[in-house]
Amino acid sequence: METFGKRYHPPGTPPGTLSRHGAETANATRISLLEYSDSQFSETLSPTPEQCRIAQQNAYVDWLDVTGVNDPTAIRELGETFGLHPLALEDVLNSGQRPKIDFTEHHAFLILNLPHLVGDEILLEQVSLFVGKGHLLSFCSGDGKAFEPVRERLRQGFGRIRSRGVEYLLYTLVDVVIDSGFPLLEDLGEQIEDLEERVLENPDKRILNTLHQLKRDLLLLRRALWPQREVISRLIQHDGELVDETLRPYFSDCYDHAVQIIDLIETYREMLSGMLDIYLSSLSNRMNDIMRVLTVIATIFIPLTFIVGVYGMNFTHMPELHWQYGYFGVWGIMIALAIGMLIAFKRRKWL
Amino acid sequence: METFGKRYHPPGTPPGTLSRHGAETANATRISLLEYSDSQFSETLSPTPEQCRIAQQNAYVDWLDVTGVNDPTAIRELGETFGLHPLALEDVLNSGQRPKIDFTEHHAFLILNLPHLVGDEILLEQVSLFVGKGHLLSFCSGDGKAFEPVRERLRQGFGRIRSRGVEYLLYTLVDVVIDSGFPLLEDLGEQIEDLEERVLENPDKRILNTLHQLKRDLLLLRRALWPQREVISRLIQHDGELVDETLRPYFSDCYDHAVQIIDLIETYREMLSGMLDIYLSSLSNRMNDIMRVLTVIATIFIPLTFIVGVYGMNFTHMPELHWQYGYFGVWGIMIALAIGMLIAFKRRKWL
Amino acid sequence: METFGKRYHPPGTPPGTLSRHGAETANATRISLLEYSDSQFSETLSPTPEQCRIAQQNAYVDWLDVTGVNDPTAIRELGETFGLHPLALEDVLNSGQRPKIDFTEHHAFLILNLPHLVGDEILLEQVSLFVGKGHLLSFCSGDGKAFEPVRERLRQGFGRIRSRGVEYLLYTLVDVVIDSGFPLLEDLGEQIEDLEERVLENPDKRILNTLHQLKRDLLLLRRALWPQREVISRLIQHDGELVDETLRPYFSDCYDHAVQIIDLIETYREMLSGMLDIYLSSLSNRMNDIMRVLTVIATIFIPLTFIVGVYGMNFTHMPELHWQYGYFGVWGIMIALAIGMLIAFKRRKWL
Amino acid sequence: METFGKRYHPPGTPPGTLSRHGAETANATRISLLEYSDSQFSETLSPTPEQCRIAQQNAYVDWLDVTGVNDPTAIRELGETFGLHPLALEDVLNSGQRPKIDFTEHHAFLILNLPHLVGDEILLEQVSLFVGKGHLLSFCSGDGKAFEPVRERLRQGFGRIRSRGVEYLLYTLVDVVIDSGFPLLEDLGEQIEDLEERVLENPDKRILNTLHQLKRDLLLLRRALWPQREVISRLIQHDGELVDETLRPYFSDCYDHAVQIIDLIETYREMLSGMLDIYLSSLSNRMNDIMRVLTVIATIFIPLTFIVGVYGMNFTHMPELHWQYGYFGVWGIMIALAIGMLIAFKRRKWL
Amino acid sequence: METFGKRYHPPGTPPGTLSRHGAETANATRISLLEYSDSQFSETLSPTPEQCRIAQQNAYVDWLDVTGVNDPTAIRELGETFGLHPLALEDVLNSGQRPKIDFTEHHAFLILNLPHLVGDEILLEQVSLFVGKGHLLSFCSGDGKAFEPVRERLRQGFGRIRSRGVEYLLYTLVDVVIDSGFPLLEDLGEQIEDLEERVLENPDKRILNTLHQLKRDLLLLRRALWPQREVISRLIQHDGELVDETLRPYFSDCYDHAVQIIDLIETYREMLSGMLDIYLSSLSNRMNDIMRVLTVIATIFIPLTFIVGVYGMNFTHMPELHWQYGYFGVWGIMIALAIGMLIAFKRRKWL
Repeated sequence: METFGKRYHPPGTPPGTLSRHGAETANATRISLLEYSDSQFSETLSPTPEQCRIAQQNAYVDWLDVTGVNDPTAIRELGETFGLHPLALEDVLNSGQRPKIDFTEHHAFLILNLPHLVGDEILLEQVSLFVGKGHLLSFCSGDGKAFEPVRERLRQGFGRIRSRGVEYLLYTLVDVVIDSGFPLLEDLGEQIEDLEERVLENPDKRILNTLHQLKRDLLLLRRALWPQREVISRLIQHDGELVDETLRPYFSDCYDHAVQIIDLIETYREMLSGMLDIYLSSLSNRMNDIMRVLTVIATIFIPLTFIVGVYGMNFTHMPELHWQYGYFGVWGIMIALAIGMLIAFKRRKWL
Repeated sequence: METFGKRYHPPGTPPGTLSRHGAETANATRISLLEYSDSQFSETLSPTPEQCRIAQQNAYVDWLDVTGVNDPTAIRELGETFGLHPLALEDVLNSGQRPKIDFTEHHAFLILNLPHLVGDEILLEQVSLFVGKGHLLSFCSGDGKAFEPVRERLRQGFGRIRSRGVEYLLYTLVDVVIDSGFPLLEDLGEQIEDLEERVLENPDKRILNTLHQLKRDLLLLRRALWPQREVISRLIQHDGELVDETLRPYFSDCYDHAVQIIDLIETYREMLSGMLDIYLSSLSNRMNDIMRVLTVIATIFIPLTFIVGVYGMNFTHMPELHWQYGYFGVWGIMIALAIGMLIAFKRRKWL
Repeated sequence: METFGKRYHPPGTPPGTLSRHGAETANATRISLLEYSDSQFSETLSPTPEQCRIAQQNAYVDWLDVTGVNDPTAIRELGETFGLHPLALEDVLNSGQRPKIDFTEHHAFLILNLPHLVGDEILLEQVSLFVGKGHLLSFCSGDGKAFEPVRERLRQGFGRIRSRGVEYLLYTLVDVVIDSGFPLLEDLGEQIEDLEERVLENPDKRILNTLHQLKRDLLLLRRALWPQREVISRLIQHDGELVDETLRPYFSDCYDHAVQIIDLIETYREMLSGMLDIYLSSLSNRMNDIMRVLTVIATIFIPLTFIVGVYGMNFTHMPELHWQYGYFGVWGIMIALAIGMLIAFKRRKWL
Repeated sequence: METFGKRYHPPGTPPGTLSRHGAETANATRISLLEYSDSQFSETLSPTPEQCRIAQQNAYVDWLDVTGVNDPTAIRELGETFGLHPLALEDVLNSGQRPKIDFTEHHAFLILNLPHLVGDEILLEQVSLFVGKGHLLSFCSGDGKAFEPVRERLRQGFGRIRSRGVEYLLYTLVDVVIDSGFPLLEDLGEQIEDLEERVLENPDKRILNTLHQLKRDLLLLRRALWPQREVISRLIQHDGELVDETLRPYFSDCYDHAVQIIDLIETYREMLSGMLDIYLSSLSNRMNDIMRVLTVIATIFIPLTFIVGVYGMNFTHMPELHWQYGYFGVWGIMIALAIGMLIAFKRRKWL
Repeated sequence: METFGKRYHPPGTPPGTLSRHGAETANATRISLLEYSDSQFSETLSPTPEQCRIAQQNAYVDWLDVTGVNDPTAIRELGETFGLHPLALEDVLNSGQRPKIDFTEHHAFLILNLPHLVGDEILLEQVSLFVGKGHLLSFCSGDGKAFEPVRERLRQGFGRIRSRGVEYLLYTLVDVVIDSGFPLLEDLGEQIEDLEERVLENPDKRILNTLHQLKRDLLLLRRALWPQREVISRLIQHDGELVDETLRPYFSDCYDHAVQIIDLIETYREMLSGMLDIYLSSLSNRMNDIMRVLTVIATIFIPLTFIVGVYGMNFTHMPELHWQYGYFGVWGIMIALAIGMLIAFKRRKWL
């Protein structure tokens, strides 16, 4: 899970200062411009500012797709070309932002978190989206692979995507980001069910670490995904022309998915905290079993050991020692005592 | 309890793609069209699209009742015939949705969860309802047995149901779904009372598993039923013509039942978490009893064993060994010591 | 405390089906009609429908007072005479409803819970009130003794009650129901204070049962009384002519009492959960005391017992055994060891 | 801390019945009428109703200051003179009310709680205030000493108090009541810091009682002071002429103080509940230390004691007993065993 | 962490009494007046009231910057010159106020908390800001070093700050105060990650103190920073002319940071409370390991010791003692017993 990296300027820096903070991403910045209409599609890698300016004005839908955000100069240039607010650009560069939505004069600006599994670890990719008239800019802090199916659908002209406007493209991307939570939560869900079985049947020490790891993952996942519900809700309710009547069901569906994900996270968290209780109880149950056996064995033998100690004393005058059946008598007493104690323990349900 | 099955498309799939996800249900898809008015009733099994189209336009109330949702082709066909939104159909096919209500141009679309007991397990059946002008479509992911009494009431013309419109039919079905929570909660309530008695009177290890199982059931039940309150509340408040003045008390009654169910679930959850505390306390109480006895027996015998050990030493020069009443003297000392310690323990209330 | 009895029809029953569910109450149904004005008062036992219809139309204030609700036929008849909604009547018959308020065309319909102590147990009596123009119907699921002082005040003409309308009668009855929580909570409060003293001074095992019982009582009491605040608040805010300016302070006072009761319940609940912590800590404190003593005694005697064991060995060649002061030397070493260990324990504050 | 005294009439009593419930206060009822304007001041002890009536009509600001509320007759007389609502008077007499604000035709009626320390105990004094046109009535259930500085400021004409109206007097009294929470919370804060030090450095048994006492005090204090925030907020927002533009900052300041007090109480409560965790952990840490030492000592000596026991047996044929260096050999084995076990324990970090 | 110092007047003091309460700060009061426009900048140390009055009226933006608030006379003088409300000045002098915002006729008045690390301790500096037409007054209870970069930017004319009005200066200062939480939380975050590793790998006693310290720090930090979100939100929503359309994104950004800080604090708090559970479980796990070993060793040797005790008895008639292979037979029995017990323990998974 991504740790809490520096995501701030030193206090007192002028606002909108562009320098890249956030975890070092190995992904090189790759900018491509996808232009399409119902019947046409073109893709330009590393477009010039001039090409961008033309794209903004023509009738095509333009998607400027940036992956691997670590080139402040290129970002600043794009910002100037498209008239983006410097504070928004600052947020794009400093990955690790809280999901949010802002409306400026010309753009709606969304920040979302796209969680995905890399090996056992959950990585959060920050996706920043600017939607303006006829164009959309997307910035992924990671490798942007999650958007590949969308690019392919545009290239192939598959489905309705090319026949609809930039708002539908926005929906498509938001949908990809939100739905990326599902396979991840399914994976966590399976881990939790495994753990649950182990807790009940065979509680051991490694469970604690797994439990702690899962709890932490869910905590940080909740922190990253919780605000996305609010973001989509405000997107739907915004009374610009962004989400019209025909798109409403699509974004509604996105909203339902965001709620479902939060719901799952909360349910998992409650299951985990219930499991810790069960684990501790199981442990203490097992401990009690062991202790009870010790208690019984010790409690039976301690008096017996005392008795044999008595007749191990070397006093000159110990009449019992010389009795004919003294030894067997002592055995008799000891066996009677042991049986008596066993019965007493059984009655008190200690055995 | 139904586990968390795959209920999503891989991220990036075009919206409205119809393929059946969700737990495999053995129930074959069965479609029947029930048409009725005050004086008439007809039932058609597996109606043709043409029959459906005619039914939509005539003056009868039409109920298209689909059970066992696992035939995407048939569902898509129905969707086209009745003009249902593809995203809604996707939700119908992917069972495991969160209860919700959506209003589209021609339909109100509800998703509800119908819980029922199969053996010891709680199963959730997803019920999806589309209500349009003069017609209602219902989709049950399970076997749809819960609606049998309603079908029978329609066939027999029993009660007022045939003399009222499609909204009353909606009420009837929603009422069945909501009320199906009561027998289930009663069953859980009885299990909880049983458990409570056992916890207080005879706490043993199996209680932990039962407790955990009940907690988990209630958690998942809460997750499935909690949003239904909101659904009915929004249904009542919606300012279409769906719920008129005469139907208001009926849906109000449904709402009260939904609240009562949530209330019961919360109460049960609190009782269970109180019970875990009591169980752990009982366990530690019993453990303490056992430990106290060990402590007392050990603490009394350990010094005595030391004393007899002393006179078991083989030193040549040990004057006490040769005293006339040495042996009896030691016994005296030991008995005095034991009694003294017993008194001391009694005073400190350790016994 | 009343357990969770069946309070539902089998799912699928037509709404408004009148058959008595709820715990069997031994109280026979007793219906009486009290009519009064400033100067007049008459009381009719088991009035005929005709008498009821006349009472509705005359200028007197009419109180139809029903206790022991277990005669569905009589209730249905009354419902028809006064034009009550069949769903409301269903709620009247199925005791164990959540407190609520509904406004129908001709009546305001309230359900309240009247808790009272029978021996050690808390019983909940369901009080259902219908208020219409000039008449009020009250249904008590119990014996209705709580309303006896009101009946007496009407009979005697004591106070202002006879000179005011049906809304003041409503206030009087609601006030009785709400205030019935106070003596009960006072009783619980005293039990809690008793318990608190015992927990701090002399924690023993029976405390756990008492604590659990009190917690459960408060939980169920909260569930029964919590919604009453909302009921009165909605009664005051309702913009019909039910609560006018002069009655507002009276119902406000009722509301304050309902809030005060909830407040007390919450405070008691927090006190109890604090007490469980204290109880467990006390227990573990006492246990630790006992264990510490064991530890010290055992830790001191175990090495000593070893030493005496050494000189109890029967080796032929053990030089120490034949030393003149060997025995006394061993005693010296043992005493020194014991004192040394005592000092070490004292220093570590283990004693 | 004041316990929960009877603060209710038996259910069914007519409303507005005046008889004094609440804890017996030893303070005699003392009524004094303070009249003042910018240049004048007069104080009348035990004014006659006639004097009160005149005071109400003249141009002076009139403060009728009642301390020690335990004379129902006098209170009823005052109520009639000033036209107070009988239900409000009932609240004045039954101390232990929840803080609240009510607006009647002629008066605003406030109930506040004034907490103060008497020895180690927190006492709650109920302050009831009626504010009407040009006059204010205050009732203190205690000795009213808290208001002495205000009386003195009026007598001396110190500050702006005499030049402003009755609303400023209201502010002054409310401010005194709210601010009386600060010295008390400071005292509790100091106790908590003391306790915190003791918990971390030297946890012993008495801590539990102190902790419980503090928790209880804070719980009851919260219950008494929490609603006061709401009272002041409603006082400010009320759209009568009570709080005008110039007084707004003063009451705002009161509100801030009320919030600050609640904030402190919540912070203290969280600190205490954290401390209980730390205390229990400390205890169990110390217990574990002790247990570990026992374990190590016992585990080392138990096998050694067995060995010496072996050679204490009296078998005729025990070859080792007659070996030349048998005794020293046994010592060697035992020392080696002890050292081996010590090393094993060290490695497992048990020592 | 700053403790809870006296921050109140004795109840009953006239409002607006200026005397310095709050922790003694060693910083001398330093007042400087910074005046600037796009092209000009002047700085006056300890300006006279006359200079202040002129500054208020000229066209420059005026920042009166006060650090080390401990000279009531100077503050009162400033208050009179700028027409500040006496209650606001009282808050300025009594550091330790809750963050808040108030709007008076001529000024917006903000109180914020600026946390910074001094060694290991978190200190809270109270920053009070008055914003009026063309001028801003800032009061820092500490040394005001946090504002040095802003002063420098003004002096150097770096960035846009000099070309914009007093509202932008307000944003700049608020931004500095809010962002000062980030380095501090990063520091805490690192401590928490360190602790987490230690808890899982090597739980020891010092962890408890660190954990407690961190919890306390976060608790007090939350108390100090939580209300700042509300302050900024109200600042943005206030419908004066304070925050216009161009400044909105800047204050929005501040708001996002305030939310992010609260979010982090909450996440850290949950992580810490999870960690206490893990720590206690780890401890009890280790304890159980130790106990299990003791149990096994003791349980194996106690019966063996009994057996050797038996044959250490000195009875005259003990046939076994004289058997040829008695001694070896006893060894055989003992070894068999030990192995049998070991196998039994292994099977029950106690080893």
